[in-house]
Formats: sequence, C-alpha cells, structure tokens
Amino acid sequence: MTQTPTRPARNGVDVPTLFATLDAVKDAPHLADFRFRARNEWISGTHNRSWIQGFYGVGQEDTSRPEPFLYDADHPAVLVGNNHGPTPIEFLLHAIAACLTSGLANIAAARGVTLHRVASTVEGDIDLLGILGLDPEVRNGYSQMRVGFEIEGDASPEELAALVEQSRRRSAVYDVLTNGTDVVVDVITP
Amino acid sequence: MTQTPTRPARNGVDVPTLFATLDAVKDAPHLADFRFRARNEWISGTHNRSWIQGFYGVGQEDTSRPEPFLYDADHPAVLVGNNHGPTPIEFLLHAIAACLTSGLANIAAARGVTLHRVASTVEGDIDLLGILGLDPEVRNGYSQMRVGFEIEGDASPEELAALVEQSRRRSAVYDVLTNGTDVVVDVITP
Repeated sequence: MTQTPTRPARNGVDVPTLFATLDAVKDAPHLADFRFRARNEWISGTHNRSWIQGFYGVGQEDTSRPEPFLYDADHPAVLVGNNHGPTPIEFLLHAIAACLTSGLANIAAARGVTLHRVASTVEGDIDLLGILGLDPEVRNGYSQMRVGFEIEGDASPEELAALVEQSRRRSAVYDVLTNGTDVVVDVITP
Repeated sequence: MTQTPTRPARNGVDVPTLFATLDAVKDAPHLADFRFRARNEWISGTHNRSWIQGFYGVGQEDTSRPEPFLYDADHPAVLVGNNHGPTPIEFLLHAIAACLTSGLANIAAARGVTLHRVASTVEGDIDLLGILGLDPEVRNGYSQMRVGFEIEGDASPEELAALVEQSRRRSAVYDVLTNGTDVVVDVITP
C-alpha cells in the first residue's frame, strides 16, 4: 500500500482502495473465492422474476446491499409473451456491456487516464429455428455478439482503445460468453 | 393450425398462438432471424446503465415495448464499487434461471402439464484471482454455475423433471453459457 499516495481517485474509482484491495488479496488469496447467487420464481407463462442480493466473498457473507435487486424477464408479444421484461437472452447484452465498462473505468483510473464519456452498443444475432426445434443444424444461442465502444478521455485514441482491450482480457463475462463454462441443472425434489 | 382447438391456454401460455407461431415460422424460416440490442452508458466508477427496448425479428423492427427496460450494474463495496446494481456477472445468473423457466412453462403447456409452482436457485463460483490479474492459471469467469429447480404440477416427478431437461436442451442462454459464442469487441472512433 506504499503506492497509494501517488494514485488519487479518478473516474469515480477510489484508486487507493482498489490497490489496497489487490494487496490484501495478494497476501490472502482465499479472499478471492466468491459465490454469487440468484433466486428466480415463475409468475405466469414466460414471465418470471429474479432476486439478487447476498453473495459470499472476501471470506464472509456480504450484507452491504440493503435491498434485493429484482429483475423480470418475459418473452415479447411476437414470441407469445407479454413484455413484462426483456427476454432472458437480452440480459447477456447488458452483462457484457456492463462488465467491459466497469473494467475499463478501473483500468483507466489505475493508468491515470481521465474518462469523459463511455458508451457502448451491443447486438446479438440469433436464429430462432434452433430453440423452436425446427432445424437441428441451427444452434440455440447467439451466433454472434458485437460490442461497439465510444470512448472519450484525456489520452490518445490508441491509449483509449487499449483500455477496452485490457478490459476484454480481464472480463469475467467475456470469458464465460466466449469460452463457456460448466452449468449444472438439477431438479430438487421436495 | 388444425391442432389448435385441442390445445387450450395453460400456465398462462397461449398455446394455440404458440403453435400457430411455430407453423408460421415453418412456412417462412426467415421470420426466425432475430437481432437483439442494448445500449450502455458509463455513469461513474464501476457504475453503468443499460437500455433494452427495440429488436429486429419476425421480419421487422419490434415496437411493442412502450418504454425501455433500464438496468444498472456496479461492483459491491468489497470490490470498491457502490452497490448501485449487481455486478455484471450476476446478471448471467438471472439470465439462465429466466431462460430455463420461460422454456419449461411453454413446454409444460404444450405437453398439457399444469404447473403449480416453479422456483430456482442459481449459484456461480468465481475465483477473482483471474480478473485481478494475480494468477494466470485462474480463468476470469465462473468455474461453475448451478441451477436447482423446485417444480410442482399435475404430473409425475419424472414428467416434471423431463420438462426441465427439455427446456435445458432448447435454452438459448444455456447454449451460450456452456458452449460460448463469438463476441466481437470494437472501439468506434468518432
């Protein structure tokens, strides 16, 4: 933590605390074991709702969120739903944009770059012949996702682009979406 | 659409329209080409916000959502954020639970199974040594995600479990999370 005096807060990122956190985890790697959780309840038809609040991390249950975050999902009218929320697959668009954006704000702050504006547009292409069971050659999920960043700050275009690239290299959501992970689905019988 | 009179609405699913939609797509497969979109703007630090509203599908721009859906993301206090929303990676938990739940409600309705209750709990394990850049052997994303369903309805435990299994086989989110997809990240220079 000797370096903290030379790294002020920037971009809304508390850089001294960010580096102190890194130092703390270096000294006690088990603090980096996290378990995130959500609870979902079916409402009607394709409409359902998730609760996100507690998680395990830094060696303990987190209790810093005073209220749960609630998210509805549904299918749109053209897919016989009622538009009570986005489709589930659209939340992947939010997740990748949010992960890359959070990361690049941290990385910019650590590198001493002040950001003026960051925005992104995400698209996902999907051929529903897969999930509708109408063509076994078509996959169920997105064939491609694209994220386009607009970024302004007090650095060269090359340095700004390098922030996005480093964020991509360190993104948890990018890793899961591009490499996949193990997903276990069970039915818990009462 | 000859079968519609024998398949009433069930579980809040308009089964006749669901089958009519399948028939329409069988006759014109290009209707199944969808493109979903989100827009994200950085706010401060790790806090950012996505807008989800329009998409392309069924051969046209969808205009059925009167207002955009807005979602914030942030890091929690222990990760030097301000809890303005869940972490981006937690939205993957919502996405998988929502996708499997929407699918099984449709599949149950199509099979004539009346559901009484569906709930699920999702967990995701992640070792942050990856994204913190402290151990090159540790991946950035979840090492494992687990979804546990509780399901009650007017069918045998085996039939209810088979609904979950069929939903998993047809889930867009499950496909992306387990198999990964192509994610292109670009910086758009003004």
